[in-house]
Amino acid sequence: MKYPKGVNLNISNIKTDKISYSNRGMELEKEINISNEYYRNNNIAFIYKKPTPIKVVDVDYPSRKEAIIKKAYFEKPSTTDYNGIYKGKYIDFEAKETLNTTSFPLANIHKHQIEHIRNIINQAGICFLIVRFVRCNITYLLKGEDFIDFVDHNKRKSIPINFFKEKAYVIKDEYLPRINYIKIIDEVYGGALNAK
Amino acid sequence: MKYPKGVNLNISNIKTDKISYSNRGMELEKEINISNEYYRNNNIAFIYKKPTPIKVVDVDYPSRKEAIIKKAYFEKPSTTDYNGIYKGKYIDFEAKETLNTTSFPLANIHKHQIEHIRNIINQAGICFLIVRFVRCNITYLLKGEDFIDFVDHNKRKSIPINFFKEKAYVIKDEYLPRINYIKIIDEVYGGALNAK
Repeated sequence: MKYPKGVNLNISNIKTDKISYSNRGMELEKEINISNEYYRNNNIAFIYKKPTPIKVVDVDYPSRKEAIIKKAYFEKPSTTDYNGIYKGKYIDFEAKETLNTTSFPLANIHKHQIEHIRNIINQAGICFLIVRFVRCNITYLLKGEDFIDFVDHNKRKSIPINFFKEKAYVIKDEYLPRINYIKIIDEVYGGALNAK
Repeated sequence: MKYPKGVNLNISNIKTDKISYSNRGMELEKEINISNEYYRNNNIAFIYKKPTPIKVVDVDYPSRKEAIIKKAYFEKPSTTDYNGIYKGKYIDFEAKETLNTTSFPLANIHKHQIEHIRNIINQAGICFLIVRFVRCNITYLLKGEDFIDFVDHNKRKSIPINFFKEKAYVIKDEYLPRINYIKIIDEVYGGALNAK
C-alpha cells in the first residue's frame, strides 16, 4: 500500500466511466514489481522499487517497541523509482504511464530526475525509461541517452509518440515475466554486460 | 527527518549520562550521507540512502493537491540502506554502529538483508558493511564475502572484533569526504572496476 488510493491521480484526465480510479497508474508498476520478483526468484537480476520518500513530522510511542506515525507527507523522489543489479551492471529506471495518445508529457519526469539520469549515464550505468501509452496498449523502453538527447535539443514539453516509434524498443506483453525488460537490455546493451 | 528522535533506539544499551539519545545511531549515517553528497557533487559516484520503508494506513485529503498521512508504521527494510553506482559497477552496503567493544551483534543485520548481500555478491556486485565500534572510535569496511563466510561457518550471534581486525579495512577519518569508503573500494576491488 505505498500509494494509497487517490494519490497521484490526475483526475481531470480520466474517463470515469471507463477506468477505475484505484487502478490508474498502478498497473504498470504492479506488473514491473511482479516481473522483478520473478527475476529475483530465478537469480536473473536483483532490481527493487525504492520506497516512496515520506517526510515524518510526528510520531507516537504507545509502548517502548511500537512507533506510530501520526503526521507525515509524501515527498517528490529526487532519483528514479527502480534500481539494482544485472550481470554486475548497475540498472536504473523510471516507469510511467500516460493516458495521452500522441505524446509523453515531460512534466512526468522531474528536473532532479533528469539530472539523475544524466549522472547515471555518465557513470556508465544502464539507465532508461519504461513508458506505457495506456490507450494505445503499448509499452516502450526508451534509453536514457535518447531521452537526454531529446530534452537537450527540444523546447517541447512532451515527447511525441513518433519519437518512441523511431528510437524506443517495444516491450511486448509476456506471460512470465509480464514485462520482460531484461530481454530488451540484453538486446540493446548486450556488449556492455559482463559475463558472470 | 527520516528517523525521528527515539526510533530504533536500543535503550537498554545506552549510558544516558554520556550519549545523547537523539544522536545515537545517527552519527555514522549522517557522515556517510555527507560523504555521498561530496561524491555526487564531484561526479565521483552516485550512491544514495534508500528512503525508510513506511506502511501508510490512513491518508487525509484536505484539498485536491494535498495529502496528509494520518497513520503509518515504520517497516523493516528487506535490502540494505545504501546503493548506487561507481565507475559503472553496482555498489551496495549497510552501515551500522555498535556500542559493544568486543563484538558486532548479528541481530543488527536481518535475515533478509543477509540473503540480499549473498544475492548481490552472486551477481558480481560490490557489497559490504560499514561497521563503527563507537566506543573504540574505529570504523571498518567488511567485504560482503567475508561477512557471508563468517555467517555460514559460525554459530555465534556476534562477530568478534578480532575478525574485523583480521579481515576488514579501517576507514580513517578524513576531512572531505569524512567517510572516504570509495578509497577503500579502489584498494580492495580495484581489479573489478571498469575504467570509465
